[in-house]
Amino acid sequence: MQTIQEYIATHKNRFIEELIDLLKIPSVSADTAYSQDVLNTADAIMESLKKAGCDKVELCETPGYPIVYGEKIIDKSLPTVLVYGHYDVQPADPIDLWDSPPFSPVIKKTAIHPEGAIFARGACDDKGQMYMHVKALEYMTSQGNLPCNVKFMIEGEEEVGSESLAWFVPRNTEKLANDVILISDTGMIANDIPSITTGLRGLSYVEVEVTGPNRDLHSGLYGGAVANPINILSKMIASLHDENNHITIPGFYDKVEELSREERDEMAKAPFSLEEYKKALDIDAVYGEKDYTTNERNSIRPTLDVNGIWGGYTGEGAKTVIASKAYAKISMRLVPNQNWEEITELFKSHFESIAPAGVKVKVTPHHGGQGYVTPIDNIGYQAASKAYQETFGVTPIPQRSGGSIPIVALFEQELKSKTILMGFGLNSDAIHSPNEHFGVWNYLKGIETIPYFYKYFTELSK
Amino acid sequence: MQTIQEYIATHKNRFIEELIDLLKIPSVSADTAYSQDVLNTADAIMESLKKAGCDKVELCETPGYPIVYGEKIIDKSLPTVLVYGHYDVQPADPIDLWDSPPFSPVIKKTAIHPEGAIFARGACDDKGQMYMHVKALEYMTSQGNLPCNVKFMIEGEEEVGSESLAWFVPRNTEKLANDVILISDTGMIANDIPSITTGLRGLSYVEVEVTGPNRDLHSGLYGGAVANPINILSKMIASLHDENNHITIPGFYDKVEELSREERDEMAKAPFSLEEYKKALDIDAVYGEKDYTTNERNSIRPTLDVNGIWGGYTGEGAKTVIASKAYAKISMRLVPNQNWEEITELFKSHFESIAPAGVKVKVTPHHGGQGYVTPIDNIGYQAASKAYQETFGVTPIPQRSGGSIPIVALFEQELKSKTILMGFGLNSDAIHSPNEHFGVWNYLKGIETIPYFYKYFTELSK
Repeated sequence: MQTIQEYIATHKNRFIEELIDLLKIPSVSADTAYSQDVLNTADAIMESLKKAGCDKVELCETPGYPIVYGEKIIDKSLPTVLVYGHYDVQPADPIDLWDSPPFSPVIKKTAIHPEGAIFARGACDDKGQMYMHVKALEYMTSQGNLPCNVKFMIEGEEEVGSESLAWFVPRNTEKLANDVILISDTGMIANDIPSITTGLRGLSYVEVEVTGPNRDLHSGLYGGAVANPINILSKMIASLHDENNHITIPGFYDKVEELSREERDEMAKAPFSLEEYKKALDIDAVYGEKDYTTNERNSIRPTLDVNGIWGGYTGEGAKTVIASKAYAKISMRLVPNQNWEEITELFKSHFESIAPAGVKVKVTPHHGGQGYVTPIDNIGYQAASKAYQETFGVTPIPQRSGGSIPIVALFEQELKSKTILMGFGLNSDAIHSPNEHFGVWNYLKGIETIPYFYKYFTELSK
Repeated sequence: MQTIQEYIATHKNRFIEELIDLLKIPSVSADTAYSQDVLNTADAIMESLKKAGCDKVELCETPGYPIVYGEKIIDKSLPTVLVYGHYDVQPADPIDLWDSPPFSPVIKKTAIHPEGAIFARGACDDKGQMYMHVKALEYMTSQGNLPCNVKFMIEGEEEVGSESLAWFVPRNTEKLANDVILISDTGMIANDIPSITTGLRGLSYVEVEVTGPNRDLHSGLYGGAVANPINILSKMIASLHDENNHITIPGFYDKVEELSREERDEMAKAPFSLEEYKKALDIDAVYGEKDYTTNERNSIRPTLDVNGIWGGYTGEGAKTVIASKAYAKISMRLVPNQNWEEITELFKSHFESIAPAGVKVKVTPHHGGQGYVTPIDNIGYQAASKAYQETFGVTPIPQRSGGSIPIVALFEQELKSKTILMGFGLNSDAIHSPNEHFGVWNYLKGIETIPYFYKYFTELSK
């Protein structure tokens, strides 16, 4: 029997090639032009699960893209790990900012990744991180040392709100029954500072439309005399934060958990250099809610960001037009205890109430999800912590993430089990951005660490 | 000798046919596909000026499309009228919204034009209104009653910014020397309420770019911790107006002419129904600077409007991104005495100064022009007023327009003469829009009125 380290040494080139093949399929779930590619990716994942040793693999139909399900049940009396991941990716726009085509993966060395990183849309989020689990399973089944049962549930709509998964999970609670859920769709602090995400923010994502006059107008003849939807939208957006960058929506903070000074002091121990943070983003100052640090602002505090805005003439040159309509996409990151549907309703009422006479406002909720916390005394957390200690040689740091995986709260509600977020990506991996990449070292380190999680989780479950 | 009324009765069918021939040539200056048509139109105008009795007609080369120049000098001791117009037209897009092809003129009756209107691109703006002057000259030369000298300057780039004219005028001040400039490129209130445009607004048009982090970021991981360029741009735009909708740029109003209560009362006599105005635009309220009426807001007051805004994800569905950059196109309509270059500079300094730490701001001026006013005690205005009284039977109303014709301020600067804006079109003529048209009655009324202007201007000049 080979150790995981020996197995990786033998097969690492193939592991990389297989991931590259997967990254070549542009599985952009947000754009229907890619729907066949999304389906083809699901097929490829099915094949890979079969090859990795799953006994039963199936494509589960949903109202949207199918969910790939696979399982290997070795003994019903043993614990069951449910692996969740997603095979869809973010849109690649803006394409012209990519140094190489987003769906033609290339391996390049960077300062942080001296052993090379794979550059492609989805390299880290989440094809690379999801595929680590497939390869870890391949190792365990090939060597006959899988210590427990395993189920895979890989969806194709994570980047557009996981609606079909939310439909699927409550209808398949028996099939999905498990003792712990394992996800690699987050990051860690640094390659020498592993961390485990213990908290996720919730999300409420809405689109707003402001309509002024019933048609585009000449700005000379009408300028100054009618409400300009772009000016009004800007004003409404601006009013959503006060001078301390608190969000002004009434009731928004009512259920926000206030951390104690002790907890905040504990968090503040995570290594963080504000200078390096600013330098990496090329900004001369950070910006955010008064009386909170950068790491608090993006983890334990709720936020409101405009993700897109458009209206009027946006082509070359000048056009003196007052647009009839202006639009924005706005998302709010929520903290545990904030209910996303309630927050969406608060946003909608407030936004409609601040519209001045002269415009009409429409708020359309896109999607959302609850925040989530895993306590560090949970045996899943402890098994993960021991696994990292094996392969990184240090104890990982528990960390609240600013991101959202709304489905995690749903898992807890429907499947009654806790989720362990073992992420191996880095903040600098540019997920959702041009030039997304995933370190080869990180990819292989994930494959190496995962089998230890199975081992310790099974032992701690006894 | 025939009166102008007799002459029109004899020749009106030919006048209409000649205009229709001119409208058949698609002289779209914005699209190089039509460049030969633009040149052919210039040739046609040359021919028409020769036939109308000009002694000297020439095509003046410029860096762009040529300027058609014609003159009839009868006595150097008499005053000289310079007629300005343009032979180019706006693009016809969106073509599919036209009820008949834009360059196949047809005459149809409408509620406002019971005697029929000519439907074609350029029918009103400006071929029809410009050609009235050619036909009025034809009348005066054919009857030997031209009372003064006349010069024509008809350009081919008005719809794309008159750059070649701005090059031509300062180089030909002697050739263009005149006592008054006459333009028909504006409108009047109604066929039974003639009006003369006495003021035009200036313009400063800029593009702004706000840069935050050096790349698009995941809004979960960075949301709340860095300045979001779209939120910041919205906030900066919102801050450009105060709670009374005054513009907050320091110094912006310093040179704004404050009209007396009497002048404002005079303006307020123009017929205007706020209910109809709101109904036509499908808005439940107007919006604008406190303490000014709608007609004041869009004529005697400077304004600031966002003409376009964009940034982040604007496609279908949702993307949780913090954009690296956000952009807006912003224009300010200026009133007489405000210098557009000074205002552009004030905007730039102010906009840069209000950028918070964490973003970089770039302001790029696009173009601009000065505002303009003709005092109603000017003899050109008085001559025009008497001419309208002759042919309409009522005294025309002096009216400030919210629009801009930047070249008019240049004429005053370079040629030291005032411009009289005798427009015969109506707001409902759909200039720059599908189904542009010009009433046959308006066309003939213009031809009838213009010779009286020459008569009274010459008399008042004595």
